[in-house]
Amino acid sequence: MLKYGFYNDYSEGAHPRILELLQQTNGNQEIGYGDDRLSARATELIRQALGQPDADIHYVTGGTQANLIVLASILRSHESVIAAQTGHIHVHEAGAIEAVGHRINIAPSVDGKLSPEGVIEVLDQHTDEHMVKPRAVFISNATELGTVYTKLELENLHELCRSRNLVLYMDGARLGAALCSPASDVKLSDLCELVDVFYIGGTKNGALLGEAIVINHHDLRSDFRYHIKQRGAMLAKGRLIAAQFVALFTDNLFFDLAQHADAMAAKLQHGMASLDLRFFSNSTTNLIFPILPNQVLHKMLSMYGFYEYARIDASHTAVRIVTSWATPEARVDEFLADLSRT
Amino acid sequence: MLKYGFYNDYSEGAHPRILELLQQTNGNQEIGYGDDRLSARATELIRQALGQPDADIHYVTGGTQANLIVLASILRSHESVIAAQTGHIHVHEAGAIEAVGHRINIAPSVDGKLSPEGVIEVLDQHTDEHMVKPRAVFISNATELGTVYTKLELENLHELCRSRNLVLYMDGARLGAALCSPASDVKLSDLCELVDVFYIGGTKNGALLGEAIVINHHDLRSDFRYHIKQRGAMLAKGRLIAAQFVALFTDNLFFDLAQHADAMAAKLQHGMASLDLRFFSNSTTNLIFPILPNQVLHKMLSMYGFYEYARIDASHTAVRIVTSWATPEARVDEFLADLSRT
Amino acid sequence: MLKYGFYNDYSEGAHPRILELLQQTNGNQEIGYGDDRLSARATELIRQALGQPDADIHYVTGGTQANLIVLASILRSHESVIAAQTGHIHVHEAGAIEAVGHRINIAPSVDGKLSPEGVIEVLDQHTDEHMVKPRAVFISNATELGTVYTKLELENLHELCRSRNLVLYMDGARLGAALCSPASDVKLSDLCELVDVFYIGGTKNGALLGEAIVINHHDLRSDFRYHIKQRGAMLAKGRLIAAQFVALFTDNLFFDLAQHADAMAAKLQHGMASLDLRFFSNSTTNLIFPILPNQVLHKMLSMYGFYEYARIDASHTAVRIVTSWATPEARVDEFLADLSRT
Amino acid sequence: MLKYGFYNDYSEGAHPRILELLQQTNGNQEIGYGDDRLSARATELIRQALGQPDADIHYVTGGTQANLIVLASILRSHESVIAAQTGHIHVHEAGAIEAVGHRINIAPSVDGKLSPEGVIEVLDQHTDEHMVKPRAVFISNATELGTVYTKLELENLHELCRSRNLVLYMDGARLGAALCSPASDVKLSDLCELVDVFYIGGTKNGALLGEAIVINHHDLRSDFRYHIKQRGAMLAKGRLIAAQFVALFTDNLFFDLAQHADAMAAKLQHGMASLDLRFFSNSTTNLIFPILPNQVLHKMLSMYGFYEYARIDASHTAVRIVTSWATPEARVDEFLADLSRT
Repeated sequence: MLKYGFYNDYSEGAHPRILELLQQTNGNQEIGYGDDRLSARATELIRQALGQPDADIHYVTGGTQANLIVLASILRSHESVIAAQTGHIHVHEAGAIEAVGHRINIAPSVDGKLSPEGVIEVLDQHTDEHMVKPRAVFISNATELGTVYTKLELENLHELCRSRNLVLYMDGARLGAALCSPASDVKLSDLCELVDVFYIGGTKNGALLGEAIVINHHDLRSDFRYHIKQRGAMLAKGRLIAAQFVALFTDNLFFDLAQHADAMAAKLQHGMASLDLRFFSNSTTNLIFPILPNQVLHKMLSMYGFYEYARIDASHTAVRIVTSWATPEARVDEFLADLSRT
Repeated sequence: MLKYGFYNDYSEGAHPRILELLQQTNGNQEIGYGDDRLSARATELIRQALGQPDADIHYVTGGTQANLIVLASILRSHESVIAAQTGHIHVHEAGAIEAVGHRINIAPSVDGKLSPEGVIEVLDQHTDEHMVKPRAVFISNATELGTVYTKLELENLHELCRSRNLVLYMDGARLGAALCSPASDVKLSDLCELVDVFYIGGTKNGALLGEAIVINHHDLRSDFRYHIKQRGAMLAKGRLIAAQFVALFTDNLFFDLAQHADAMAAKLQHGMASLDLRFFSNSTTNLIFPILPNQVLHKMLSMYGFYEYARIDASHTAVRIVTSWATPEARVDEFLADLSRT
Repeated sequence: MLKYGFYNDYSEGAHPRILELLQQTNGNQEIGYGDDRLSARATELIRQALGQPDADIHYVTGGTQANLIVLASILRSHESVIAAQTGHIHVHEAGAIEAVGHRINIAPSVDGKLSPEGVIEVLDQHTDEHMVKPRAVFISNATELGTVYTKLELENLHELCRSRNLVLYMDGARLGAALCSPASDVKLSDLCELVDVFYIGGTKNGALLGEAIVINHHDLRSDFRYHIKQRGAMLAKGRLIAAQFVALFTDNLFFDLAQHADAMAAKLQHGMASLDLRFFSNSTTNLIFPILPNQVLHKMLSMYGFYEYARIDASHTAVRIVTSWATPEARVDEFLADLSRT
Repeated sequence: MLKYGFYNDYSEGAHPRILELLQQTNGNQEIGYGDDRLSARATELIRQALGQPDADIHYVTGGTQANLIVLASILRSHESVIAAQTGHIHVHEAGAIEAVGHRINIAPSVDGKLSPEGVIEVLDQHTDEHMVKPRAVFISNATELGTVYTKLELENLHELCRSRNLVLYMDGARLGAALCSPASDVKLSDLCELVDVFYIGGTKNGALLGEAIVINHHDLRSDFRYHIKQRGAMLAKGRLIAAQFVALFTDNLFFDLAQHADAMAAKLQHGMASLDLRFFSNSTTNLIFPILPNQVLHKMLSMYGFYEYARIDASHTAVRIVTSWATPEARVDEFLADLSRT
């Protein structure tokens, strides 16, 4: 029996205030497919948080779904999307993007992050109709390695995209963790200027399920609901996702939960660093990648749940430790105590 | 302000026992993507209900998703699916089946139901490689017109499919209503013999979301989870759908809810018939299609919510009235009383 | 041994002047993929014939390929194409349009021809995101039943398309036959105004293979070569198709060949009418559909090759007789003589 | 004005004996879509050459088309194909494989060639349904770098594929050049045992167009003609491609042409080596990749046509020189003489 699982940030159910709102609104009759009052309320709250009274917002159940629908709605069949080697669409979506017809071009990346130079390198290799035509850039914030983009980095990427007719799309599965990171100078409302499309992740920040897609670029808005429906992502009871975003965007809950997850990871990282451990990436969010001596690894794995990430050398392994909105600080302390004893 | 909405069977939230179970299990840490203990329990309960200890069961969030994933996993690119003109995949799924690459061949149907003769008619028109090759037959039970298939009808369809190398797939968005219909002699467990793949609809029978796909035919089982993932349908918190099926398949709840919905519709239909109204289809489930004089239609629409379905003649319109697990009998009585007064 | 085959208009090889040009230019080194001098010359000649010095012209090997590439390049994934029940994309292309992701909406048609009313009927049924969104209209000229569109009919369709944001696309597999039909008041150059995209069919008018796609609407031109390449339709030796169009558009050959095919069919039709035969369609081109008593049918089938098209009643069958640029008038006379004797 | 183009092996038209056969058979009436007598004859000749009286053979117009049709017919939507970084499907087919829905997994390669170790490396990274499932291995022989596979290398790859349930598919755009290479110990007939599917390239070996797909593995044969038709690759006048393979497989023409192309390249390579030039790849076929000092490069480019391939360092560039069945030996001698003078 493990003391605690640091496997990921979707191990627990939902924050109690979400369940409470579902309970309170359960008996009301509502129109289906997102035309309900809870969806209207969620959109109103997110628009306020964005400072954009006209923001175009849509709800889907998960990140892979968000990614494939957004990209399928944007790209013509000969167009491709540029991503990092570690990008979720490249690694862990079972070919979802190819299944809707598009190639993913891998650009060089550092710590899971794309740079203008990396994007240009791909563009320079795609010059005529014998190749695909890059048309979108996919970034994750926070990245799959727990790192975040600064405002300047996003401005530079966006500027490049504008000048090269590329759509900049941000996967925000862990957007809360990114925005609450001490390394981030980006505010939620900044994203309306910094990227063309992004989504606000609920599943990994306290919701049962749900991601809120925000389409900033007006040209990309047309007929988006058709794409949601066509991919089987339009819930009959749209109220289910909406209620969760209503709860998350009431009384700062979305940020409080992300803040907690980040803080727990920072405490772990700080504690590990004081034990002279090194890290595989410069994470500043709720995913951290300490490098453990294999002996330590095995002892810790007998007490705690987490995944091995990469073999470093014959005697060291990078592991992935994830904290969440629900991680008790006592478990963090216990983990560090156990670690210091091994 | 309307007295009550008979728009559809997904207007309310979830049955209280579902919310209760979500609440009770909320704090547990679980493995993601359907490898949790609730998913295992749901599968165990459904297997018991099916009388099939090895049944292959998968959970997705909605009917369009179930349909596109099942068909995409079965069909090669030149293969098509045969459906009725009224089939959900043909009418109301935004081209989801074509978007995964397949033609829908429309076969003649009566009251929303396919017959072997109708299927054969399509087969006879598809003879060589200049045409698509029919490979699956899509039926809905209950149908989109509220009718149900008898055991004999299903046996005949299945026998034809077997002899012509066709996969028989049943959309069970309203399977509960079908099985509880007085016109049905089919039991849930019969379906393991009568069709190759089907799904048990949760969304329209008291769940917040969720359909349980059952793959009877062994050859169709391989790699099915890849298809769920690739189409963005694999929830990180698989526990959410699973918990609902645990609740539904505990203490007969699934059938009790469907029974209630059917009974409310039957009461409406009986009351309407005694007012000499005719019906557009021979429904025996929770969707009924009375034909109203237009004057009556407009008066009733000022008091109740429901959809117009088809123009019958200059002065009559068929409407769709839907009851659900949550429809209070008092609202049914009130509707009939109001109707008799108009 | 049959006396002659009236199966179709692609039974023979190429017109001798085409083979001659291939022979003459065979030794020249040319750049690949359509950037050769013959392609430039073909485009120049077709532009002259169109009276459009800037016409955007592309070459592919066949009609199904032209149709799937044009429609795939135009339609977003939720968009559909409207066609007649008899439309080639619906009947004889093995699901090619669905395989690139799009539904074909069938509109009512008469003699293989669409009307604005038929198109509107489809539009009226597609009102929201639960359905596909019609975005293109597919017509064939000549149609699969040998009939042609008049200028007024095309103007009316085009006007409707413009007002409803639909792309009007004409399959011109038998465009030569249509333009040379006595029932047609349309000139080749008119098509630049009358439709948004069309193709000039070579395969069925004396070429070994090849269709010339003309994109009139500027918004539809971008990146078209990517789509040709991506679908495997860009020949390394583009000169092969180009040479054929050079020959066809030199000294009026394209029209002379179509004229001959039409004239042979008209002679057959005239002769049959004088034998009191009726016809299944009002063809005025090189496909005719006489209705034969079954006894006559079987005698004629023992001497000539042609296809049965539709059962009319217990004793009559409509057949399809096709003439081509290569049909000798002597065979036509012989057929009529044999027919009058049966 | 250039003295000669070494751009590629599809710069000229067809070998005269091909044109001659087209001429001779031009007037015959034939059934369409590959059911003609020339197609039957071509298949008979290729079966003889393969020593397989039952070989399953299909004709398409080009290599991209062959690749996309073969892979689309084999792969289910979650399955992928493994290829080298330099593989044609990865580099120069405009995303054709992704457009039919499949990811290409890049495996490590040397000189354009895959090894079992490289394939295993990809397999080891694809372990569950969050990733695509590799199901086919794509190799080119000759490769895009002019190298060839030995019999042992193919046996090893095939053995691995068999044991891991992978389909081994060989792109034979330059199969003639490979088989005639001095480095090859593979005979055409060996391929029926060594790979599951391959194609015999005509376009780059003297034909105007045309590739003959050979499906060795029985399980992959079903319904293949549907896929050809659905992708727009079934020529109405199938006789056109067939005639070319009849000519190529009569009197050893196919091998004579490839032999000549290889010999011309070998002469160039030998001459260059004697001038102390190095090469970018160990080519033994008709594509060679000498590394030229940039000054030499520019002088030669002013006299001859060929493509730059890769920058080696500040003062050296690898170029691609291609010979063909039609390359006159005098031009080769002239090129070497000019090179030795620069």
